[in-house]
Amino acid sequence: MLVNLGAVASYLKEHDNYTILTHAHPDGDTLGSGFGLCLALRSMGKKANVINEEELPRKFLYLDVEKQDFEEQTVVAVDIADTALMGKGVEAEYAKRVDLSIDHHGSNRQYAALNFIDSAAAAAAEIIVELVELMGVEITKDIADRLYTGISTDTGCFRYANVTPKTHLLAAQLMGYGADAAKINTLMFETKTRTYAALERLALDGMEFYYDGKCAIVTITRDMFAKSGSDETECDGIAALSRQIEGVLVGITLRERHDGTYKASIRSHDPVDASAICARLGGGGHRNAAGCSLPYDTVEEAKAKLIETVGEFI
Amino acid sequence: MLVNLGAVASYLKEHDNYTILTHAHPDGDTLGSGFGLCLALRSMGKKANVINEEELPRKFLYLDVEKQDFEEQTVVAVDIADTALMGKGVEAEYAKRVDLSIDHHGSNRQYAALNFIDSAAAAAAEIIVELVELMGVEITKDIADRLYTGISTDTGCFRYANVTPKTHLLAAQLMGYGADAAKINTLMFETKTRTYAALERLALDGMEFYYDGKCAIVTITRDMFAKSGSDETECDGIAALSRQIEGVLVGITLRERHDGTYKASIRSHDPVDASAICARLGGGGHRNAAGCSLPYDTVEEAKAKLIETVGEFI
Repeated sequence: MLVNLGAVASYLKEHDNYTILTHAHPDGDTLGSGFGLCLALRSMGKKANVINEEELPRKFLYLDVEKQDFEEQTVVAVDIADTALMGKGVEAEYAKRVDLSIDHHGSNRQYAALNFIDSAAAAAAEIIVELVELMGVEITKDIADRLYTGISTDTGCFRYANVTPKTHLLAAQLMGYGADAAKINTLMFETKTRTYAALERLALDGMEFYYDGKCAIVTITRDMFAKSGSDETECDGIAALSRQIEGVLVGITLRERHDGTYKASIRSHDPVDASAICARLGGGGHRNAAGCSLPYDTVEEAKAKLIETVGEFI
Repeated sequence: MLVNLGAVASYLKEHDNYTILTHAHPDGDTLGSGFGLCLALRSMGKKANVINEEELPRKFLYLDVEKQDFEEQTVVAVDIADTALMGKGVEAEYAKRVDLSIDHHGSNRQYAALNFIDSAAAAAAEIIVELVELMGVEITKDIADRLYTGISTDTGCFRYANVTPKTHLLAAQLMGYGADAAKINTLMFETKTRTYAALERLALDGMEFYYDGKCAIVTITRDMFAKSGSDETECDGIAALSRQIEGVLVGITLRERHDGTYKASIRSHDPVDASAICARLGGGGHRNAAGCSLPYDTVEEAKAKLIETVGEFI
């Protein structure tokens, strides 16, 4: 059932002992929203924990809060469009019993008993800011830091087309509550590990162009992970780089996974719809940022299939 | 004389036939503020032009407005801390007769008859937004695009420590007036020429670390310019890259100039003071971003001198 934000606030006030689910391969928005909501619930006297399929990536450790010990009664999903995105362990445990889902993906599959979806929100954290205020909870610096992180990371630091005037108003508000925007943005956007920097160089050295430079493709092989000392947890930033080249409408990052299959991240400029390209290949996502898996044996096969498909869209 | 913003608004309403000066090596803030103010004055029925020492860099051409023909009566400087920053030609012509200066640099030398300086503003464009409103001028999409550009570029798209809640409130307001934030940010932050991207890769491939990884140095030789097809007009972005590596306190970019001398750009994280390092070598700048010239015959000599000097500061 779809509900409005007032109903979400009432529901959260009336229940207790929360497990907050965040999506696998966690980003700043699912974690910032999850931990921000967790702290808000705790300051209302509730018990709440955040869980994730994986260990927190090192760069997001500052968002973490200490676990509480209690018997779980209520399950809330944040920024999860589909139960398949929870990761296998969390999905097996929780998929069929999510009480409330709060999300900003238009593609949300409404798998929960109660679903609040606002696809106009640039980040799930935008929704959480309003929700926390509706619940009458004071936004502390700790809450503000987490919700600012969600908004900042899901908008590329206010750079992307999903930013609205409201996004800036909420950022102003969170800074007013003490969010340390400069420190958060340095951590999120201005810090690369040496291993990641080495991987980025190896990957960009092999960038190839197709369709008169309208499509750029970068391939990350397991061999590059080995050479650079980097791994899959820190290679998300590379996806955006190929689209930055002047004239490129479709930027593709093709990554060889641990199990030998391939994952493509596609970034596009309008009028090209990245989610349409990925949908054709069994994946999905947003209009300008989408992804899909490619079950091929060799990188050449995966690349050929991608380039052929992209050709139908540019 | 120092004046307040109300006095600036009154002054601009009472005068006419404006020449608006912007600083040499123009950036998005001086140009966005200058052209934004120019359009606001014109919509009040005044005549106004913006001038700059150089031709507009290609990436800023969208800010340009058509020149008007009139006899100049009033000279306004925007975002210019010192007449020496006007460039030689503009300085010779105007330095001694600036009627009004509007700036956000605390270091402003108050060279004009009337000076308005607000060092809490992240960008000169923040001041112009308020000024235009004080003058009762409607902010059109054309004005909003220019002022948004100023704010966005001078804050690294809301990433730097100079951003305040007010910065976000003004951005929200300008988007409400029609500023095409996503398009502007794509142009300013997400677009690299293929030649620049090639230069960046060549330069980063040669990155070296010193002092246990606390100092990173990138060298750009004339040979790299030749190989990549890039040139000195588009290599400013590289300077920030070495400081992004985790653990690096001092990131140096050493560039071989056309005349065979060397120019160093130094970026630091606190507590290291880049301007102090550069001052030792005859240069200067801000605390975390500074530069100097190195009159050596070989890149090895220039690099050795730099590294030795940096060693005294970390």
